[in-house]
Amino acid sequence: MCRWLAYSGSPIRLEVLLYKPAHSLIDQSLHARMGVETTNGDGFGIGWYPADQGGPGLGEPGRVVEPAVFRGTGPAWSDRNLRELARCVSSPLFVAHIRASTGTAVQQTNCHPFRHGPWLWLHNGSIRAFPELKRDLMVAVDASLFPFIEGSTDSELMFHLALTFGLREDVPGAVERMAGFVEATAARHGVADALQMTVAVSEGTRLWAFRYSSERASRSLYFSTSVQALRALHPDNPVLQMASEQARIIVSEPLGDLPGAWNPVPESSYAVVQEGHDAIRTFRPQAAAV
Amino acid sequence: MCRWLAYSGSPIRLEVLLYKPAHSLIDQSLHARMGVETTNGDGFGIGWYPADQGGPGLGEPGRVVEPAVFRGTGPAWSDRNLRELARCVSSPLFVAHIRASTGTAVQQTNCHPFRHGPWLWLHNGSIRAFPELKRDLMVAVDASLFPFIEGSTDSELMFHLALTFGLREDVPGAVERMAGFVEATAARHGVADALQMTVAVSEGTRLWAFRYSSERASRSLYFSTSVQALRALHPDNPVLQMASEQARIIVSEPLGDLPGAWNPVPESSYAVVQEGHDAIRTFRPQAAAV
Amino acid sequence: MCRWLAYSGSPIRLEVLLYKPAHSLIDQSLHARMGVETTNGDGFGIGWYPADQGGPGLGEPGRVVEPAVFRGTGPAWSDRNLRELARCVSSPLFVAHIRASTGTAVQQTNCHPFRHGPWLWLHNGSIRAFPELKRDLMVAVDASLFPFIEGSTDSELMFHLALTFGLREDVPGAVERMAGFVEATAARHGVADALQMTVAVSEGTRLWAFRYSSERASRSLYFSTSVQALRALHPDNPVLQMASEQARIIVSEPLGDLPGAWNPVPESSYAVVQEGHDAIRTFRPQAAAV
Amino acid sequence: MCRWLAYSGSPIRLEVLLYKPAHSLIDQSLHARMGVETTNGDGFGIGWYPADQGGPGLGEPGRVVEPAVFRGTGPAWSDRNLRELARCVSSPLFVAHIRASTGTAVQQTNCHPFRHGPWLWLHNGSIRAFPELKRDLMVAVDASLFPFIEGSTDSELMFHLALTFGLREDVPGAVERMAGFVEATAARHGVADALQMTVAVSEGTRLWAFRYSSERASRSLYFSTSVQALRALHPDNPVLQMASEQARIIVSEPLGDLPGAWNPVPESSYAVVQEGHDAIRTFRPQAAAV
Repeated sequence: MCRWLAYSGSPIRLEVLLYKPAHSLIDQSLHARMGVETTNGDGFGIGWYPADQGGPGLGEPGRVVEPAVFRGTGPAWSDRNLRELARCVSSPLFVAHIRASTGTAVQQTNCHPFRHGPWLWLHNGSIRAFPELKRDLMVAVDASLFPFIEGSTDSELMFHLALTFGLREDVPGAVERMAGFVEATAARHGVADALQMTVAVSEGTRLWAFRYSSERASRSLYFSTSVQALRALHPDNPVLQMASEQARIIVSEPLGDLPGAWNPVPESSYAVVQEGHDAIRTFRPQAAAV
Repeated sequence: MCRWLAYSGSPIRLEVLLYKPAHSLIDQSLHARMGVETTNGDGFGIGWYPADQGGPGLGEPGRVVEPAVFRGTGPAWSDRNLRELARCVSSPLFVAHIRASTGTAVQQTNCHPFRHGPWLWLHNGSIRAFPELKRDLMVAVDASLFPFIEGSTDSELMFHLALTFGLREDVPGAVERMAGFVEATAARHGVADALQMTVAVSEGTRLWAFRYSSERASRSLYFSTSVQALRALHPDNPVLQMASEQARIIVSEPLGDLPGAWNPVPESSYAVVQEGHDAIRTFRPQAAAV
Repeated sequence: MCRWLAYSGSPIRLEVLLYKPAHSLIDQSLHARMGVETTNGDGFGIGWYPADQGGPGLGEPGRVVEPAVFRGTGPAWSDRNLRELARCVSSPLFVAHIRASTGTAVQQTNCHPFRHGPWLWLHNGSIRAFPELKRDLMVAVDASLFPFIEGSTDSELMFHLALTFGLREDVPGAVERMAGFVEATAARHGVADALQMTVAVSEGTRLWAFRYSSERASRSLYFSTSVQALRALHPDNPVLQMASEQARIIVSEPLGDLPGAWNPVPESSYAVVQEGHDAIRTFRPQAAAV
Repeated sequence: MCRWLAYSGSPIRLEVLLYKPAHSLIDQSLHARMGVETTNGDGFGIGWYPADQGGPGLGEPGRVVEPAVFRGTGPAWSDRNLRELARCVSSPLFVAHIRASTGTAVQQTNCHPFRHGPWLWLHNGSIRAFPELKRDLMVAVDASLFPFIEGSTDSELMFHLALTFGLREDVPGAVERMAGFVEATAARHGVADALQMTVAVSEGTRLWAFRYSSERASRSLYFSTSVQALRALHPDNPVLQMASEQARIIVSEPLGDLPGAWNPVPESSYAVVQEGHDAIRTFRPQAAAV
């Protein structure tokens, strides 16, 4: 049961969202309110697209930029390097994740985000009976992608299944096929309600956020509809006063208690954050041909 | 705000106390009930006197045995090496500590227990305004002991002050002089209510546990009066059924909810666990000549 | 290119072999002489069968004992916990490994030894073109064993292939089938000289050590023929003076320069250390039916 | 015996110097040639002044900027986060250090660089008989600086002594007084040839590099006299082709074998790198009034 955050907008320093809010993501590593566990101390990670090498509004839509990833195995709350980076790094699009392991090892290769070329992926939730299903799921990963799986989590495997099913061409379709394949595989093993997920995906210019579970009781997910909400959260923050109108934050749980600032992503749906026209659409698992 | 445990009795495997009880010390690393913080995830440590090299009842009272110390900087709840050791190591006298840092670095040299020759020391609490008082306190440490201070905590410094004030000859007296010296130093700096502590000390045959705070509102501390209580906690555990009648456990908070099993150590007092005649006595800080 | 050590005999403290010899395994972590790399600083591990719970000569041949495993991701030379354990733990059968990664992540689940029930496995060498072959090799692992693969190394996968091919019933045969399967899989991919290995295996009473490479230019491997050699290495060590005549050490490279103390395991062969009748036999990869 | 590097010039990505050269600093972590030890695997650190927040040539000479510091306790050669940062972070002035401990603990607070406000400090060498001298040296640290000492190294203590002796007003003078004080303190204890050091210091616009030892046999230290040398090292590197003429690198040992590229800093002297007029001057320890 993890917590995560994704930001897209004009470049801001990471600490503005990771440390400054009253119920910041780092605070949630010790005191999460809406998760199954209050403590998310089994590692963490951030991924960011450098401010000067791409990102929204830079006018280079076709450019492939490999984002930076920083991951640690200790709790986020006491990590000094994370605090340093958050203070000094600015980015127009970044994600952050704090982990509560559901049993797999606490190691860097199990920390989110996972990366493949320009793509970042992070996940909260789990695949039920994963040890039993793992082999059948792994066999479905494309042979060219197989060597890139480094850790042992369901989350990383879901990412590589989505890549196998066409993530690079059609993000929502590939995630729907991944979900459908996981559910079909589970069904063959007699496992019901197999998938529980909120997922964030990006390639540096757009940001997708999914909320879905087989049992239709998905983990919480919220988005900030407008930069006004963000500014109201931090009236004294000069960076936010300069933030572009397109700035959006998506989070597992709200960063503060400001009324009206946060909207739940509906059950079985996904949001796209992109220049000009954000959208929320229905999410439906699809059959996948392996 | 840490949690700790100390055991003295016939040799048992560490996991019997660290992992098996319903509200074990490892459970307390995630879900402490009586501390200021519920999470104690900033490192941990265990110290044990080998079963075959000394300890109570081995008939070698004058033998000096250096105990083993194992300390880690991650949370205890996910440490696989700790689980392995707890499963395989037996000891007649051991201590364990889970740490919630009050600001000093999360590093092995700040984890308890601290060791000097055969002596082990662990502490829950703090010295108020420690950064301000630290220099004056360190200067008082005996020159021959000074090089052995490796970390940056108040706890380790308290240990070396107690050693300076004669811990090896008179444990209660040395701890009382240490407390008196800390309070006097704080008073000179205009700091009131300087000391907050529960402390465990051992040299391999006896075990002392102190409960004191300058403001007389000390952190919780409990002891198990009889092995009967322990057996009732674990009626199915064959090791405990074989435990000697002298077995004693001292803990920051009870390991379970068994009525009658745990007794609070009174405010401003200390307990001695030793062969034949346990005792609880009054603790009074004393003036120390530096 | 790692270094490893295995010991079988009367119980001794681990430090006697890990730290005390002039060219001890810990010294080899900084200054290996016979490997491809002089530094083996990418993690380490030890595995031991508790002295009082099994091992050679304890008269319980059929008893299944899960050995203890302690693994760390930093260099062995600076690990304080390893030094503590080596000082305090005694065992009649233990193994130790220092790692030099050939590219896979430095993480605990990639450190040797690997364990399955009572079995321990450690490896020096590699599978050529492992990223390309990995998927075909993993698919061959028995479905019931698949969930136990936690890391990303060729070494751990070789272990699970050997378990798939009957390690628990026939150690040499299973390792020969594993080697044959790896070579056959590599051949299908056009990869020559696929396997390079020295391997140690134990279940707590016997110890097997393999030396093999597809190209017949295997990594170095040595065994001590007699406890006399060991005693001559450490004439002042009282523990060794009490060692049983059956004590044997197998190492990647000798622990010292004593003439006559160390014998190379011949190319393409394996040694069995067991009560009464040690043996060295020829190793021949075999075809395996998947 | 550590290795370090300092750069001042137009902003470049850190990897250009840390990873790309044939005998880069990261390569030196495994294969140092000129140090006492070939392996520098006991932690590492980098410190950098953000490209967009200050540094040479930014026209804000009086601005105080706190540099970013990233430190790790494992070997630099396998640290993935270091590689990520080096790839994505650009800076006009940065330092890097790889550590070979001379006995003190391997922990983040013992890793270089050390920081105080805008100041960075790194050191190669040692104070002889440091455990014996430590108390007298620590007592001399100004009371307001004392709480900022977090680790246990001689290097960090030297930094805080230099701060005590006026580093913020007069860098060379303060370092000379620190050296004089260390030598005088050692002399009182009967310790000869007490100090061995190469030191780098910066506040974000200037860079000082010292080479000194009491016995006049100092650790190696080199500087690149001109950007032409740097360009010749990397003829294909577009970043360097754009580097300003003022770019300077100072290193414990050369990053490659290019003839003429590297000049030794003379024995008992120091270099200042600053806009317009670099200089090399004589270093003479001075008496310090405590």
